[in-house]
Amino acid sequence: MTDVPRSHPRYESLRTRDAIVAGVQKGITSPHGLIAHGRGEAYDYLLGEKSHDFALAAIDAAAHMLIHARHPVVSVNGNVAALVPDELVELADTLDAPLEVNIFHSSKEREEAIRQFLEEHGAKRLLMPSRDAELDFIDSNRKFVHPQGIYRADVIFVPLEDGDRCQALRKMGKAVVTVDLNPMSRTSRTASITIVDNVVRSLPLLIARIRELRASAPEQPGAEFDNARNLAAAERAIRAESR
Amino acid sequence: MTDVPRSHPRYESLRTRDAIVAGVQKGITSPHGLIAHGRGEAYDYLLGEKSHDFALAAIDAAAHMLIHARHPVVSVNGNVAALVPDELVELADTLDAPLEVNIFHSSKEREEAIRQFLEEHGAKRLLMPSRDAELDFIDSNRKFVHPQGIYRADVIFVPLEDGDRCQALRKMGKAVVTVDLNPMSRTSRTASITIVDNVVRSLPLLIARIRELRASAPEQPGAEFDNARNLAAAERAIRAESR
Repeated sequence: MTDVPRSHPRYESLRTRDAIVAGVQKGITSPHGLIAHGRGEAYDYLLGEKSHDFALAAIDAAAHMLIHARHPVVSVNGNVAALVPDELVELADTLDAPLEVNIFHSSKEREEAIRQFLEEHGAKRLLMPSRDAELDFIDSNRKFVHPQGIYRADVIFVPLEDGDRCQALRKMGKAVVTVDLNPMSRTSRTASITIVDNVVRSLPLLIARIRELRASAPEQPGAEFDNARNLAAAERAIRAESR
Repeated sequence: MTDVPRSHPRYESLRTRDAIVAGVQKGITSPHGLIAHGRGEAYDYLLGEKSHDFALAAIDAAAHMLIHARHPVVSVNGNVAALVPDELVELADTLDAPLEVNIFHSSKEREEAIRQFLEEHGAKRLLMPSRDAELDFIDSNRKFVHPQGIYRADVIFVPLEDGDRCQALRKMGKAVVTVDLNPMSRTSRTASITIVDNVVRSLPLLIARIRELRASAPEQPGAEFDNARNLAAAERAIRAESR
């Protein structure tokens, strides 16, 4: 852990950075994952490192969609596992959904390290990639999914997803909820709902919103949500002169 | 090396990414260096991945300053070494200046790995950190410099520098030329001349400009250069809606 006091203006960013570097040391995050994290840091900096209204609107829409899913699944890669293990377990519990490990640069050791790490954080239903089920429209190793998980899911929550797989899931008719700090990325533009926010800030907000809806108005439909319009608002925030 | 054809629109970015990941495998780049690289990627993407006029203006000013320096030094960290080893050696040769290894997260092994890597790429005058000379105004390990290198230099070319050290060098009255893709960073704002550009694109341009000036008009003063105004132009380019 970097020796930075809580009062430091960049404390949260530095704490998060240490978590992802620790992820590499634990064997759960890849070197390419660190570079992706750096890209996220830059976009978050341009966004003023806060959860904007467009993020809250996407979180609200995502909460409604996940509550009404028949077979929701939470897909986990090495970056997300390193950053928010407790929140992933909590979200899956709240939704009564399985967690499924699915990483971009495939490696059996890394998949196992992620599994073990999530189990240490209390994960109960944890699915691993399987050769028994394949996604269409994709050639890489990421096509292998679990038959009782992503393969049969109607709604997939998959933060920090890559563009190819997001596209393949959508083509198969599945709804995709993602978290991505770059509103211009292919994933952001392809997903059903894109939360343009730091996963560290937005996951607790999503969990809280799901609980709130469950407790008060589980059947009420959400507000109208237009992902493309929401992404345009996020891009304007990044490009705006003043934050 | 990623299996991406040269015709791929993101070929250069992916090739560069592979070079920096290879740097980690060779022990010359740190995990935190990968995150920094990712931040650079995001800013470069927003800049349209090209060398803008403000970068060319800074390169021209830097070439003039380096030509007229009495004791120029090229300071090298793990990211720059991994990305542009040949160009660093060429620049140092052209300027008849030493290369000096100076890394942010200090490690004797990594310093040695960088030294060896640069020597493989033809480096002749290569200075290592020494306990015999210290910079003022800085507490970290980065204060240790070589008495015949950074310590006595009047102009230091130090691409991808950190804010604290850049500030310390400036306070000691030294001129600093840096390369940084984030025009809002403390380094960018503190340096004498900031080239807001990808180091992979800008180093060959800087070497070519130095040679051109040497051959044609070595004594001619450069155009007026205002770093703050140049940085403002770079920030406008990043924030602009259209690229």
